[in-house]
Amino acid sequence: MTMVEHLSVSRSFTMLLPYYSTSSAMKRRTIRCVDSSTSTSEIKPNSIPAATPLQLNLSAAESSKKIKAVEERLERFNWKSKQLDKIVEIFSGRLLECGLVFEQNFLIRSSELGADSKASIGALTNILQESALNHVKGAGILAEGFGSTPEMSRRNLIWVVYRMQIVVDSYPSWGDVIQVNTWTCASGRNGMRREWIVRDYKTGKTLLRAACVYVMMNKTTRKISKFIKEIREETKNIFMEITEPIINHEDAKKLRALDVDTADNVQAGLLPKWSDLDVNQHVKHVKYIEWILESAPRWILETHELSIMTLEFQKECGMNTSLQSLSAVANRDDHRHHNNKHNDEVELEHTIRVENESQILLKGRTMWLLKIS
Amino acid sequence: MTMVEHLSVSRSFTMLLPYYSTSSAMKRRTIRCVDSSTSTSEIKPNSIPAATPLQLNLSAAESSKKIKAVEERLERFNWKSKQLDKIVEIFSGRLLECGLVFEQNFLIRSSELGADSKASIGALTNILQESALNHVKGAGILAEGFGSTPEMSRRNLIWVVYRMQIVVDSYPSWGDVIQVNTWTCASGRNGMRREWIVRDYKTGKTLLRAACVYVMMNKTTRKISKFIKEIREETKNIFMEITEPIINHEDAKKLRALDVDTADNVQAGLLPKWSDLDVNQHVKHVKYIEWILESAPRWILETHELSIMTLEFQKECGMNTSLQSLSAVANRDDHRHHNNKHNDEVELEHTIRVENESQILLKGRTMWLLKIS
Repeated sequence: MTMVEHLSVSRSFTMLLPYYSTSSAMKRRTIRCVDSSTSTSEIKPNSIPAATPLQLNLSAAESSKKIKAVEERLERFNWKSKQLDKIVEIFSGRLLECGLVFEQNFLIRSSELGADSKASIGALTNILQESALNHVKGAGILAEGFGSTPEMSRRNLIWVVYRMQIVVDSYPSWGDVIQVNTWTCASGRNGMRREWIVRDYKTGKTLLRAACVYVMMNKTTRKISKFIKEIREETKNIFMEITEPIINHEDAKKLRALDVDTADNVQAGLLPKWSDLDVNQHVKHVKYIEWILESAPRWILETHELSIMTLEFQKECGMNTSLQSLSAVANRDDHRHHNNKHNDEVELEHTIRVENESQILLKGRTMWLLKIS
Repeated sequence: MTMVEHLSVSRSFTMLLPYYSTSSAMKRRTIRCVDSSTSTSEIKPNSIPAATPLQLNLSAAESSKKIKAVEERLERFNWKSKQLDKIVEIFSGRLLECGLVFEQNFLIRSSELGADSKASIGALTNILQESALNHVKGAGILAEGFGSTPEMSRRNLIWVVYRMQIVVDSYPSWGDVIQVNTWTCASGRNGMRREWIVRDYKTGKTLLRAACVYVMMNKTTRKISKFIKEIREETKNIFMEITEPIINHEDAKKLRALDVDTADNVQAGLLPKWSDLDVNQHVKHVKYIEWILESAPRWILETHELSIMTLEFQKECGMNTSLQSLSAVANRDDHRHHNNKHNDEVELEHTIRVENESQILLKGRTMWLLKIS
């Protein structure tokens, strides 16, 4: 699909350039489009030719012309307000199945790619978060606080992630459209489980599955709160009956805390920065993921692809706390490892903790598969 | 606009849940939507009730049903392929004025917000980059290498940013749709200037203006290349005649290199990480911006908003190079400063350099305005 409109051999039109509207002076330009095959004009980069095809007339237009311009602009904005609803709908997704499922499409941007030209796990995590918030917003129960309902907001409660699991089959590339489906249900007495499936829009192929368990926390006391009846009532229209988890979380039970003695790699002196904070003044989840990746040996980052990630968040963190990211190769002695001479499957254990203290912020586990190239 | 479809009092339907297609077994579900006002069922978070409204039948469907399901799915993908073009067009923008101007809309995501709940300057810079690449892609002259044309690619040439200037009037918030217009022209003998205006889609209000000057570099020798005739020929359809810059770049001439003696603040030991690298294995521009912000005093970050940023890139940087970010309050002695007792306007000078060496990676200048609250 080419986005270039058909060009007639020589075509002129006059318009108010919308992207020049910052200037207080009304500018009228005549732009002449010349078909490239018949063009005889040379580009003169260092001078504005005497008879430029792009003529600027900077003098103020007469009153009648001004009125016409204002009318044209108003007309344009009327048209735009109709378009806006459509664009917002396409960009910000839609509710399916009576609101139980939310679907949103994303176009992978260049800034979301890592050094291997594929969307990074951090960028994909951000996309999951965005679709979750839009689910709550779309259902009309979003107050301030990013994910909080009005009742939660009144009681000063916020959702915090306790466990996160992502299983990636394949990473999308720049320009790919991905379709995110997400839904939620209760988890235990007081938690919420949210799940995602992300697929390639064009092929329908599953790219990744993810699940998060959230708990409710009081914003001031930082204590875990019960999932009270009033909030259950409020959220019931978007809560599914409990379904079988899309990711087997057996793995999460085995998470082990590393210390300097048990770790193979220690990245010390990690300092959360201003740009790492979210709207709650806490370090963004994606930052923890970057620190996790940071502690993986360079040869794994270069030759392997992250396939499974399990994280368990134990404590929050703000600025001015120096952190350590520790990692160790897991299952060094198990049977599978001995049969895996080519390291086509590597499992790492991770811990992020406060430097010079035993306080653990998160425990994690990642599985890496050899890249097929 | 509510995205919740009208719910009948009690409505049942059977469908193949698309987000369950990862499972090899065909799953048929019956979902009964019950209007909340007439609902009598209680949510039982810790058990799956005997007679759940969401019934899973996990047994394999008969052949005839399977065929029907496959047909339904095929039909769905036919419909989707038509939709895909539309979605890609809406997401990835369009050429205007014979290809000279490119327009793309973006919905601000939650992950793009900083601690002040506004889109961060880094996120906005990423959006500018994305629209620039899509301009080149939309014009059909994008080869690999992110912005390189086929002729550039054959000659192993890439574009590198030499100077970047951003003037922000107002920062967008979560869920805002912004419209980016971008165009390009020659700059001097061998450079390219690209400019952007970003506006609020709904109000038409200008949010920011930006300009970048790029030069061409040989990927292997890292030497600056001439803007040769063959590449000029290739790019002429998207190059405007030289226009007056939308940002006055007088300011850029005054950029001063700081050292430890002239700086007020030195952030040392900054180490580029794997996740900071772009597809060319070099540190992303947005990372430099984060380091620049990092060296600004905390009280400025909390009470002021970045209004103008000018950066001049002098050298590239990969991993394993320890860096320093230096900053100093500018114009301490000038007249304006003495009249500015409330610090409602603060100007900073910036330098990022290799630690323990005199080699400078970038020089910059930022202007901060007191937040109105």
